[in-house]
Amino acid sequence: MAQKGEFELIREFFRRPVADAGVRLGIGDDAALLALPVGEELVVTTDTLVAGRHFPDSAAPFDIGWKALAVNLSDLAAMGAQARWVTLALTLPDSDETFLREFARGFFALAEREGVSLVGGDTTRGPLSITVTALGCVPAGLALRRDGARAGDDLYVSGCVGDAGLGLRLELGQWLDELAPLARDTALQRLHRPEPRLALGLALRGMASACLDVSDGLAQDLGHLLAASDVGAELELSALPRSAALADIDSAFADILALTSGDDYELLFTASPEARKAIAALPLACARIGRVTAQAGLRFLRAGVPVEMPVAGFTHF
Amino acid sequence: MAQKGEFELIREFFRRPVADAGVRLGIGDDAALLALPVGEELVVTTDTLVAGRHFPDSAAPFDIGWKALAVNLSDLAAMGAQARWVTLALTLPDSDETFLREFARGFFALAEREGVSLVGGDTTRGPLSITVTALGCVPAGLALRRDGARAGDDLYVSGCVGDAGLGLRLELGQWLDELAPLARDTALQRLHRPEPRLALGLALRGMASACLDVSDGLAQDLGHLLAASDVGAELELSALPRSAALADIDSAFADILALTSGDDYELLFTASPEARKAIAALPLACARIGRVTAQAGLRFLRAGVPVEMPVAGFTHF
Repeated sequence: MAQKGEFELIREFFRRPVADAGVRLGIGDDAALLALPVGEELVVTTDTLVAGRHFPDSAAPFDIGWKALAVNLSDLAAMGAQARWVTLALTLPDSDETFLREFARGFFALAEREGVSLVGGDTTRGPLSITVTALGCVPAGLALRRDGARAGDDLYVSGCVGDAGLGLRLELGQWLDELAPLARDTALQRLHRPEPRLALGLALRGMASACLDVSDGLAQDLGHLLAASDVGAELELSALPRSAALADIDSAFADILALTSGDDYELLFTASPEARKAIAALPLACARIGRVTAQAGLRFLRAGVPVEMPVAGFTHF
Repeated sequence: MAQKGEFELIREFFRRPVADAGVRLGIGDDAALLALPVGEELVVTTDTLVAGRHFPDSAAPFDIGWKALAVNLSDLAAMGAQARWVTLALTLPDSDETFLREFARGFFALAEREGVSLVGGDTTRGPLSITVTALGCVPAGLALRRDGARAGDDLYVSGCVGDAGLGLRLELGQWLDELAPLARDTALQRLHRPEPRLALGLALRGMASACLDVSDGLAQDLGHLLAASDVGAELELSALPRSAALADIDSAFADILALTSGDDYELLFTASPEARKAIAALPLACARIGRVTAQAGLRFLRAGVPVEMPVAGFTHF
């Protein structure tokens, strides 16, 4: 019996019916043709995951597919964009049918849940890496940018922070004994199957003054937001939202994880104090963790008292 | 003296002033914000180049940057799109300043010539590979698709075909003695620094009934066009446009090269016979190489006489 060709496998696993009327022409021509709603701007982002760097070689193919899409959708969420279309560039060492099937299953589990259509791609042979380009749209003028924070604004972060960093430690064989099985599962799930906060991003249109997603660690990403907005901030450590998983570990280390954990993909945003009631009513809990100051720099407080934290920005490659 | 950080190098080489008023927000936020002209559709394509597969490890970094962009712009050309914006996902084994400078020089030499703005990207550590996503626009309904060829249409290809395939043979150490130095240079230039036919693509709007770019070899790509349009074709071998470089080699092999050479990035298109005068007046020479038939399949002629050619489609990964 003849083995299926790679091309056939790709077609089998990656060509799905497209329900989006904005897709005038999908996979199969030299390029896709897409129609944007009138009055909306296009939002574009691209991110690569490399095996052994952004996920362990042992990662489940389902999770790799999910995460490759999730990290890109998270950028759209951070802009307040409606996620619409993606392209997928997949570089594979060989045509492993099981890998392709599971990768596609993970990718489309998230894509279909979020109403995102795969409109193009390229498959090449080489060391495993995945580049997704995600396209969304947002009414002109309503995108959430990094540069709109003003002194006096409140500072928020969605969900919980630090779990993905804990998951990474677990992958590296650290902290295994300190954690209960449920806490381990939570942390690993956050690391391998992140949740892009798309609904929150949409809800924050016209409400957040600045926003980004926490991909490199809260302290570092906050630094980017403050620099872009030309302001500073005070951050209250006791207000950092932590999952029960982080409660199991030493609290000083939990603070560091909450501030430096990459891959959490929560939204970090600022808003005027007038928005407090609206933000408290959002379906996803957002913790008020500090306030924006005219004075530049990031200062840490614990129960209102200034403290030093060893979390200076680091170069991320 | 401290070495420059990778981040700083990327910023230095890849952040250029953007003149395009459609770029509402470029590099530096979670995603780019782009405004499409009213009444136009978005055209999106993505292609990856992997070291050792799509270019030799010895390739000049300038050429790698050029080609990574060119192969994507070629897809936009094949759609009749105006090229506008690109994202660049660059995976690098290390932060080699010379490589980055030269890669960026090649990339922007083409980008700036074609008025294309880099609006986003990602730099990661890993085996060298480059994924570009190219975005263009085209008035709704005017895109050149693969599926519009009709029986009786003429079949054309732009420029010359076969040179890039000859260049690849030269890279593999073949044919070196048969070719004059000038012919070698031509063939290697075509392979390493392809020319996306953007101006031709724009000129063919409303004129070509179907179009694609020759990236996998003329015979194979023509097969895709015929299948999409549900037609067949007769192709006259003596009409295949060949550069002087191909004149130096055995003519039977030159035919095969012209039919199977990937990487030529010429446009292959069909048009009604009424368009002959307009096509003859195009600034880039386009050779009439055959005609579209209602009968399915691709048949070869030499001086009008049917011949067999050993160029059955092959699986391309």
